[in-house]
Amino acid sequence: MKYGFSHRVRYLKSSAVRDILKVVNKGNVISFAGGLPDEELFPVEAVQQAFSKAIGSGNKALQYGETEGVSELREHLAHRMAEKGIHRSSDNILVTSGSQQAIDLFSRIMFNPGDIVLTENPTYLAALQVFESYEVDVVAVDSDDEGMLEADLEEKITQLKPKCIYVVPTFSNPGGKVWSLERRKKLLEMAKKYHVVIFEDDPYGDIQFDQETTPPPIASMDDNQFVLYTSTFSKTVVPAMRIGWIVGPHQIIRLMAQAKQASDLHTNSISQHALVHLLNDFDLDGHIQTIRNTYHERMLVMKGLLDEVKIDDLTYLTPKGGMFFWVNMPKHINTTELLTTAVDQGVAFVPGAPFYVSDPEQNTMRLNFTNATPDLIQLGMERLVKVINQHQYETIN
Amino acid sequence: MKYGFSHRVRYLKSSAVRDILKVVNKGNVISFAGGLPDEELFPVEAVQQAFSKAIGSGNKALQYGETEGVSELREHLAHRMAEKGIHRSSDNILVTSGSQQAIDLFSRIMFNPGDIVLTENPTYLAALQVFESYEVDVVAVDSDDEGMLEADLEEKITQLKPKCIYVVPTFSNPGGKVWSLERRKKLLEMAKKYHVVIFEDDPYGDIQFDQETTPPPIASMDDNQFVLYTSTFSKTVVPAMRIGWIVGPHQIIRLMAQAKQASDLHTNSISQHALVHLLNDFDLDGHIQTIRNTYHERMLVMKGLLDEVKIDDLTYLTPKGGMFFWVNMPKHINTTELLTTAVDQGVAFVPGAPFYVSDPEQNTMRLNFTNATPDLIQLGMERLVKVINQHQYETIN
Repeated sequence: MKYGFSHRVRYLKSSAVRDILKVVNKGNVISFAGGLPDEELFPVEAVQQAFSKAIGSGNKALQYGETEGVSELREHLAHRMAEKGIHRSSDNILVTSGSQQAIDLFSRIMFNPGDIVLTENPTYLAALQVFESYEVDVVAVDSDDEGMLEADLEEKITQLKPKCIYVVPTFSNPGGKVWSLERRKKLLEMAKKYHVVIFEDDPYGDIQFDQETTPPPIASMDDNQFVLYTSTFSKTVVPAMRIGWIVGPHQIIRLMAQAKQASDLHTNSISQHALVHLLNDFDLDGHIQTIRNTYHERMLVMKGLLDEVKIDDLTYLTPKGGMFFWVNMPKHINTTELLTTAVDQGVAFVPGAPFYVSDPEQNTMRLNFTNATPDLIQLGMERLVKVINQHQYETIN
Repeated sequence: MKYGFSHRVRYLKSSAVRDILKVVNKGNVISFAGGLPDEELFPVEAVQQAFSKAIGSGNKALQYGETEGVSELREHLAHRMAEKGIHRSSDNILVTSGSQQAIDLFSRIMFNPGDIVLTENPTYLAALQVFESYEVDVVAVDSDDEGMLEADLEEKITQLKPKCIYVVPTFSNPGGKVWSLERRKKLLEMAKKYHVVIFEDDPYGDIQFDQETTPPPIASMDDNQFVLYTSTFSKTVVPAMRIGWIVGPHQIIRLMAQAKQASDLHTNSISQHALVHLLNDFDLDGHIQTIRNTYHERMLVMKGLLDEVKIDDLTYLTPKGGMFFWVNMPKHINTTELLTTAVDQGVAFVPGAPFYVSDPEQNTMRLNFTNATPDLIQLGMERLVKVINQHQYETIN
């Protein structure tokens, strides 16, 4: 039978990143492709105890729960948000099945086909996929290493009347950059001036490498009118729990909860109760410091090896946190073509092109440094450099 | 600030059932309102062991997982489906965050605004909410206690060209009825003749009270072309895990997986791995038999008390399984009005009207018999009968 699907299936495609992951999980490939935390750092014992307590705490914890999330967890989240300068009561918080669901539910209640969303370029691939599935027109704003450029931002706001500006201002995926305080303030100022909602996606904010102060979240400068802020425990506890949250104006959060009720009733509440016990009993902030130190060390190992590559025009930004190097190769190198050879040689990365909203730069790549030990980073980078050099040689000759 | 929302927020409303639940969870009300399984029957020890094994089985189980679901779980599901006569390989199965998400993801890939879905009347409230949120026109087909009536079904298919027929043919919510074999066959025949997809929602199929054979699922008569079949572990293990699944034509399942990837990446995989261990180690079918026996006994207690109500024109169908009595009161009784008095008197139910697609019958109510002990059913029914008699008296005088 020939099925009649919705128009929106045109915009659904399997993520390039995840399709690559499927391939490289097989065999002997060292992967810098995924955005995976290192599972050796998972606090397994604490997670084990937290789940045991949650399941043993009474049968009510195993029953259907409230769509908004387990109230004790929302209280913990309100407290943790306040520590970041985001002072909101727990009824401005919705627990979601990972922060991916926060992007989806927000899109569901906000966007009609043809609405405009402004983003950085490149930006988070899976957010682009959600926006496109709601038939939104995504438009890139010119940016540099400090964030969006004011002139282009204002021009695009006034000309295109966007409904939302989506940003990952701290240790972005894929770019790895950090917006300056000034640019954060400027963005919020524009949002207020022209009445546009900012969606601040912050999955990596806790993964900071140096003692230097990272500028505060944009949401911390807002009086809970213009900024939605989302984050996740996937990078700091474990991804398999699928627990994220979103904080913002109550009217928006309430509509998102109603959309969530239709979507999946509520987030897995065994995991939510377990997280409450984990936050009560476990030194999560100490654990986060261990993650920071480990990833910082790995970043430096990869940086050292990148610095040894003897190719002109290879540039990158040294990440101050997060999980990724964003590498610009010489213009004549197409990283999508390079990937096939690389996988044959036992190393994987993500070509940069799919992360672009428009004008993809084919010579870019994203390298993850969190999911391999320093030894494997060494070996993988040796393989990668060999592939690049060989490609250089073949291209020149 | 005044926010601009999507058109679809018009169709989002908090479920009446869940709003009532919030009220009755407070205080001393005996609730026949919810669709909750009895938490005293939860296999807590087995769940505890299963989660402990899952978390201890290696850090990979706590990492990001595949959108389609944990492969061992899909193998188990394929096996369990085959036992119901639904023979499908595991790549025709998608694990979802409860069967609610299966309805949502299916709707997302199938429906454009203005598409038609045919349903029974009354039908599952939260499915109606999903369909409406996709701006679908839901149209009721005339039905009796055995299922949809052939003449009206064919007329509505040929006139309205629906994209889908949504049914809960076994121990339906709210009606509690079971479609006959003949009507199941007839529905599939119509679907084949006119190329319409059937969505068979079967959350209660396992909760059968007598030894008499229940007609097989409609999906078991299909060659995996016309029927999507969804079910859940919420009624047989625990709801808090939020694990459901959907089985159907690969092309549809694949698109739903892509929609799921954008929606929440994947279902909580700690719960999925735990379920694999539970299905390996625990006698789930024996446990389901205990649930059946307990609920059967409670149903009989409630039936006995309903039979004692001295009101003419009170009718109901004796449930052969599932969780609900669907009661028709005398025409002059409006159950929505009755509810306020009932809650004041310490008993709650769900008025029937919201379950109707059209022509709501205001004198209907749904009574859940699974979430209260026989003693509480006795006490609650005494309160309810008192409220009804009082209302009768007031209405007549």
